[in-house]
Amino acid sequence: FKVYAIDKNEDALKYGREHGFIMDSELKEDELVKKADLIILSLYPTDNVKWVENHHHLFSSDTLITDVSGIKMAIVNKIQSIIQKGEFIASHPMAGKEKSGVEYASASIFKDANFLITPTSINSQKAIDAIHDLAETLEFANIEIISPQLHDEMIGYLSQLTHVIAISLMNTHDNVEHLIRYTGDSFRDLTRIAKINENLWSELFILNKKILSSNIDNFINEMNEFKKILDDEDIEAMKKKMILSTERRKMFDRK
Amino acid sequence: FKVYAIDKNEDALKYGREHGFIMDSELKEDELVKKADLIILSLYPTDNVKWVENHHHLFSSDTLITDVSGIKMAIVNKIQSIIQKGEFIASHPMAGKEKSGVEYASASIFKDANFLITPTSINSQKAIDAIHDLAETLEFANIEIISPQLHDEMIGYLSQLTHVIAISLMNTHDNVEHLIRYTGDSFRDLTRIAKINENLWSELFILNKKILSSNIDNFINEMNEFKKILDDEDIEAMKKKMILSTERRKMFDRK
Repeated sequence: FKVYAIDKNEDALKYGREHGFIMDSELKEDELVKKADLIILSLYPTDNVKWVENHHHLFSSDTLITDVSGIKMAIVNKIQSIIQKGEFIASHPMAGKEKSGVEYASASIFKDANFLITPTSINSQKAIDAIHDLAETLEFANIEIISPQLHDEMIGYLSQLTHVIAISLMNTHDNVEHLIRYTGDSFRDLTRIAKINENLWSELFILNKKILSSNIDNFINEMNEFKKILDDEDIEAMKKKMILSTERRKMFDRK
Repeated sequence: FKVYAIDKNEDALKYGREHGFIMDSELKEDELVKKADLIILSLYPTDNVKWVENHHHLFSSDTLITDVSGIKMAIVNKIQSIIQKGEFIASHPMAGKEKSGVEYASASIFKDANFLITPTSINSQKAIDAIHDLAETLEFANIEIISPQLHDEMIGYLSQLTHVIAISLMNTHDNVEHLIRYTGDSFRDLTRIAKINENLWSELFILNKKILSSNIDNFINEMNEFKKILDDEDIEAMKKKMILSTERRKMFDRK
């Protein structure tokens, strides 16, 4: 593959060239866009929309465009309605780190990860197949094709709610510094993702507000139920909750 | 060290002997208790109390007794008031697995772990030193001496609240089986401890009810605050929460 990159950060481009991630080019940005067979948008969600608004006149009828955004409904239809030539098909490689920047790049994070393709009714089978091939080439463990709606509902629970929980658990008590000496693995596991890029995630949360807010409600109801059982010392109800969570979590163990 | 074990499960004893964890002995249980220099109670918290009630007549003035319980206030004073000869000093090795049974035994889980000693005013320096030596011998990374009260307050937040969260997150949605294909690392990390021994943990929770219940309240308040900020699209307040959680979580990274 011939891979080129466009970035406002010159140091990132330099690092990418020096490490062989991207190729050097004499071409200007507009020329690179014109010549590209596949464009992978890796900006924040709403910046992807803006970039397409400003560059879609450079696309040809053969240009395939995809993205890596963590939410879909708020941007997919918008981008598809802007584009006049070429095709946009959304995807979500579910792999990442708490640290951002090209210097933290690692091909190994794809190995155990899921890759989601979220086509709409206007996408072609050819485009779906091309992105599927890309995900296979990158060695993702599992590739799924789902609707933008189902994507955002799942992400609201599996990813966004978990991040709100981690943030809130970390913020529940002030003066936590003295607790470090007494901390076990469970607290570290539950708060690992409390280290979070506030610019990206506040945007992701607001773009999926309705779904996330309802997930927070459902979770708080479940916590309140558990608290009532505890306050009542209803030991049998408590055991039932634990047996249910144990059975369910076993299904999520990696094979 | 000469290590012997008493267990109602004969298979566990057999496994322990075959793997060299414990020694064989012709002595009956009462004789083993009489001869022991150090007794490590590894029963459920209230069963520890019952066992001491039934066996303390066998202790000599040199017998040192400790435990491994996850809560302290509910049992430490009780056990100390029962004993007439010998000394009970409570401790909490903060290492474990989601699976129980001697076949899952592993010495390596102590390497990165904390060991807490929770003496009361009646404990001797000699007893504290002896348990400190034990924890060093077992190669715990960090050994701390704190009061039973502080122990239970910390555990209520760092361990018990995190388990209630994991259980509740796992139980928030029914029919989760189809979600397995889309799950990323964050959900798996936050629910790992939703696989839980319902008999042990329901007892631990009820014995620390007041502290745990107030921790659940504080956490739910924090979640509700976050939900309000989200519903209001107060992006600056949301970023503040994320910056705070990020800063705090960094302190908990292993050195």
